[in-house]
Amino acid sequence: MHSPFATQDRYPYQNEPTWSRSEKAIARKAFDAALGRELHEVIQETKQKANQINESAELWELEHYLTQRRKEIDRKYDYRYSELTNVFGRLLHEGRLNEEELRGLGEDKLRSIRSSASFFATDAA
Amino acid sequence: MHSPFATQDRYPYQNEPTWSRSEKAIARKAFDAALGRELHEVIQETKQKANQINESAELWELEHYLTQRRKEIDRKYDYRYSELTNVFGRLLHEGRLNEEELRGLGEDKLRSIRSSASFFATDAA
Repeated sequence: MHSPFATQDRYPYQNEPTWSRSEKAIARKAFDAALGRELHEVIQETKQKANQINESAELWELEHYLTQRRKEIDRKYDYRYSELTNVFGRLLHEGRLNEEELRGLGEDKLRSIRSSASFFATDAA
Repeated sequence: MHSPFATQDRYPYQNEPTWSRSEKAIARKAFDAALGRELHEVIQETKQKANQINESAELWELEHYLTQRRKEIDRKYDYRYSELTNVFGRLLHEGRLNEEELRGLGEDKLRSIRSSASFFATDAA
């Protein structure tokens, strides 16, 4: 995704914020929690879809669903500090993360994350 | 798979037997029955695998399993008359078809099918 923040503020590429040790711990925990919840959701959906299979076409639909979800999750959960505020912004927007889980991050990061979340909200509208 | 029958007897490529209308009907029915059974097996196995998923790695194992089975089935069930005796030979060898289902095919075809089945048996040994 091309994010407008990168060009607007030359951020995060030119002026990347430093993540303190405690911020990294918070970020890791929030990231893993959101990923774990999303994977859990896919597991539940897979079990449900599999149980409803009656004919072969539905087998290959399940295969396609799994491939799509795997690729989407791989793209979305990008744990590079240069990407993390956009990743968290998207997860906030999708309701996969709540701000409570980000408590302890510096105001600069929270601002970027909220700004990224609004961008996803606008983009989705 | 490279089959020795093709070079041994220049069969079926050079001297392809004709399938009568009734033989075609028998072949179609046997082919569809074996395919249906194999797909049913994959459906059952998919439901079982899905129900046992506890972690994400098993999701992608299921995806891989489905991809492999789809490709294998696509390759195996080749309904071209030039391929059919080998297809049936393999299905006989795998126990996915019994000779009873082929009753009514001409002796020439049954001979080729049995010969192909023995080839698969030797190949597997």
